Amino acid sequence: MGKTRDRARALVEHKRFQQVIIWVIVLNAITLGLETSTHVMANFGGLLHVADRTMLFIFVAELVCRLYAYGWRFFTDSWSVFDFLIVGISLVPAAGPFSVLRALRVLRVLRLISAVPAMRRVVSGLLAAVPGMASIGALLALVIYVAAVMSTKLFAHIAPEYFGDLGTTLFTLFQTMTGEAWPDVARQVMAQAPLAWIFFVTYILVSSFAVLNLFIAVIVSGMEQEVTDDLVDAEDRHAADQAASDVLILAELRVLRSEVAALRSDQAADRA
Amino acid sequence: MGKTRDRARALVEHKRFQQVIIWVIVLNAITLGLETSTHVMANFGGLLHVADRTMLFIFVAELVCRLYAYGWRFFTDSWSVFDFLIVGISLVPAAGPFSVLRALRVLRVLRLISAVPAMRRVVSGLLAAVPGMASIGALLALVIYVAAVMSTKLFAHIAPEYFGDLGTTLFTLFQTMTGEAWPDVARQVMAQAPLAWIFFVTYILVSSFAVLNLFIAVIVSGMEQEVTDDLVDAEDRHAADQAASDVLILAELRVLRSEVAALRSDQAADRA
Amino acid sequence: MGKTRDRARALVEHKRFQQVIIWVIVLNAITLGLETSTHVMANFGGLLHVADRTMLFIFVAELVCRLYAYGWRFFTDSWSVFDFLIVGISLVPAAGPFSVLRALRVLRVLRLISAVPAMRRVVSGLLAAVPGMASIGALLALVIYVAAVMSTKLFAHIAPEYFGDLGTTLFTLFQTMTGEAWPDVARQVMAQAPLAWIFFVTYILVSSFAVLNLFIAVIVSGMEQEVTDDLVDAEDRHAADQAASDVLILAELRVLRSEVAALRSDQAADRA
Amino acid sequence: MGKTRDRARALVEHKRFQQVIIWVIVLNAITLGLETSTHVMANFGGLLHVADRTMLFIFVAELVCRLYAYGWRFFTDSWSVFDFLIVGISLVPAAGPFSVLRALRVLRVLRLISAVPAMRRVVSGLLAAVPGMASIGALLALVIYVAAVMSTKLFAHIAPEYFGDLGTTLFTLFQTMTGEAWPDVARQVMAQAPLAWIFFVTYILVSSFAVLNLFIAVIVSGMEQEVTDDLVDAEDRHAADQAASDVLILAELRVLRSEVAALRSDQAADRA
Repeated sequence: MGKTRDRARALVEHKRFQQVIIWVIVLNAITLGLETSTHVMANFGGLLHVADRTMLFIFVAELVCRLYAYGWRFFTDSWSVFDFLIVGISLVPAAGPFSVLRALRVLRVLRLISAVPAMRRVVSGLLAAVPGMASIGALLALVIYVAAVMSTKLFAHIAPEYFGDLGTTLFTLFQTMTGEAWPDVARQVMAQAPLAWIFFVTYILVSSFAVLNLFIAVIVSGMEQEVTDDLVDAEDRHAADQAASDVLILAELRVLRSEVAALRSDQAADRA
Repeated sequence: MGKTRDRARALVEHKRFQQVIIWVIVLNAITLGLETSTHVMANFGGLLHVADRTMLFIFVAELVCRLYAYGWRFFTDSWSVFDFLIVGISLVPAAGPFSVLRALRVLRVLRLISAVPAMRRVVSGLLAAVPGMASIGALLALVIYVAAVMSTKLFAHIAPEYFGDLGTTLFTLFQTMTGEAWPDVARQVMAQAPLAWIFFVTYILVSSFAVLNLFIAVIVSGMEQEVTDDLVDAEDRHAADQAASDVLILAELRVLRSEVAALRSDQAADRA
Repeated sequence: MGKTRDRARALVEHKRFQQVIIWVIVLNAITLGLETSTHVMANFGGLLHVADRTMLFIFVAELVCRLYAYGWRFFTDSWSVFDFLIVGISLVPAAGPFSVLRALRVLRVLRLISAVPAMRRVVSGLLAAVPGMASIGALLALVIYVAAVMSTKLFAHIAPEYFGDLGTTLFTLFQTMTGEAWPDVARQVMAQAPLAWIFFVTYILVSSFAVLNLFIAVIVSGMEQEVTDDLVDAEDRHAADQAASDVLILAELRVLRSEVAALRSDQAADRA
Repeated sequence: MGKTRDRARALVEHKRFQQVIIWVIVLNAITLGLETSTHVMANFGGLLHVADRTMLFIFVAELVCRLYAYGWRFFTDSWSVFDFLIVGISLVPAAGPFSVLRALRVLRVLRLISAVPAMRRVVSGLLAAVPGMASIGALLALVIYVAAVMSTKLFAHIAPEYFGDLGTTLFTLFQTMTGEAWPDVARQVMAQAPLAWIFFVTYILVSSFAVLNLFIAVIVSGMEQEVTDDLVDAEDRHAADQAASDVLILAELRVLRSEVAALRSDQAADRA
């Protein structure tokens, strides 16, 4: 039993095996792309369907191998859970209300991230910046919520297509925050409520400032990782040099002291 | 008297008490959100109104407690003043010309910032960057004002909906500064005043450069707080190591010197 | 003669005198703003005109004083030249083809920059970043010129309102570079030239990358001024501490050496 | 043979020769710009054509010189290859399907970059930041591809002008990533698929975050080159000072030790 497990593990950890999986993902990315073309689907639809089923089978087989090889420990690795969920989505029968899941099948291509180590590192690096953004992100969410409730109350009857209900308003405010087409919205509202510019200008300044600080949190985090490391390295190197030099000086001093002590004891012996 | 004050202070500073207030704020945020839905208001309007009144009562009672507990010192804490103003807005009768104050009630949700210490820190951090932006901000305001007076004079008769009077122009220039829909404005003006591109291009370059430097002021300020601290810490640590090592060397030298002095005085004694 | 000059210089350098000038500039900024309102002009037009003439007279008088006080050296200070040009514009009779100069009178408000020392420093700081941007700016200009000639040749017959001649194309490309309304332009061109997306995507990527690096040049320059100064200061302080400590060690060593030498000469004397 | 080669090399490396080439490029840039004006072409079309042919001949002659002077080593310098390709494009007969090549002739102006050393340095500096962007760029490409396949499947029947096929969708998503006119697209789709906001908001947040990190990669790279260099220089200078000071201390110590040793041997000699 343990031996088959070890063999399964050796298989899934083998470089050649992992490269095959990467190529299958790339091939699947291409076939999924081709499926969007009605022309291709009309001529090779059946072939693409078979290819897709085959590649899905390979992914499921690989996952079963890994599940068998690692047992429950499989779920302690977040990348494995990521693979499990993405392949799982493809297995749910995509009929009736779940027809949107057919489109989510393409998420399988994201397995490239978990399969290529270099990609994993980049994504891990990006995610490392997220905690530093959490507190400003929460503040931004609070500001948007307050602005949404306020503007729904104030402008719902003036511009219902933008501020009709809380959901619509949140979308409008997100759009305003990305700095897109806000003057259209603002001018329409201001036509009836001339003081509405106070709301829009305040909201844009506050949300831009928060977003700017969100960016800075990421920049500072990126800096701390790279620039600071470089400098601290340089400094540590110098400190090490310095410490080595100090050790030399101290050693020299101790030898000197022992020689002076010897001199003194010689003299004492002479005197005796 | 002093004893009741102490008890009041113990109450308002109690962790459980503060957590209750936070939950009431969150609950109020939800009810204020629900109030924007006409569907919910039709069915549960009365209930929401009662809940809102109750929660406002709790906020007022909490403020009265804190006012009693701290006396006039209450107003020396800017977060307390913030709470006082926000709750105060809700107490003004929102009728007739003040109907906009009904919408400002939602500002109460911002009390979450003053109630949650982590949020307070974030906002204090953001506000700390503001003084560094003041001088460039003043310059930007000056540039916008000059551009507004100039473009009102030049373009008021060409595009009155954008440059009709100083207020309208200031809004248009703010919009242009956010980089939004400026080509529509510019092309309309340029149809009649072909050289207007000089104004628009100059204004966009100058205001973008000022805004960029506003951003940099914030980034540099953020950097100075975090990256520099890291590096100066590293350096201080090394300097401390170095100083310790130097103290060791000096101590060693002083011992050596005293021994040489002893040697000399021994010799002098021998000679005598 | 020299004495009147000294007095003139004492006058123009007097703090009270400079403050009066600042207040006149601020007052002029307000009257220039009021002139944009047709309502105000209808009622107080005459008054505003008199005020404007008076304040212009004050500015001219101040400039004459400074010219007299400093002589030709007046023109060696770039801020003085700035004041001279701005006041000069207001003196040109603004009639016929020069009617645009009437609008340029508002540039006088920019004298606030040269009059307030804090503003001067900010602007000097901003201008200090410009040389670092020169080489990337030249590259960007080259890229825009090449793209303009190319797109005029390719798209002039497809979308003449955007690419009709070199001037129009340069404006369209500037607009595209600010990321504004480019999809409208691109989709219109692509309707007839489907491969035009290659031009637009390439141009946007290249110009964004150049603009980004222009920004970075400014950020790095800002950083170098502030953060680096802080760090180099910290380091210099430590280096100074270290040097002081080394001087102490060396002094101690030299004393020791002289004592050992004394010891040796004493012994030699004993032997003799 | 070798002598003519040396002379050819001396010619193409001569400063005067290179300056002439730069002036020819600048002149060609002007004539190419003038060619876009129908007015100028009607009057001086023949002259401009002759000038263009002449300057192309000069470029070809220069390239032949350099090819002769350096032989195959010519192709080891990437700037030389750049010149070769750009001049080569102009020599392809621009008729029939290659008529677009007529417009590409203007790329010759980019030879200014390879001809002016300062420009070369700037471009090399910009390109140095590219490798650091590769991994995040690949991730971004993957995200866009997955989003494109998914949105083509989901929205092709709702908004065929934006999501009709994979190419159209990729352009729409690029447009959305530049933050331009996305609300128009989104609102049109959401009219029929109300939950489409989930796709748009997710895509905007993820792609903005990736683009932000792309920027940070460039900023950090720029920083590492400039700020870090400054600091490491400062540190190295201090370290060198420190090392020199330590060498002094050690030398002093060694002299002292030799003197103590001399003292001891003197005493031993006395005793003997």
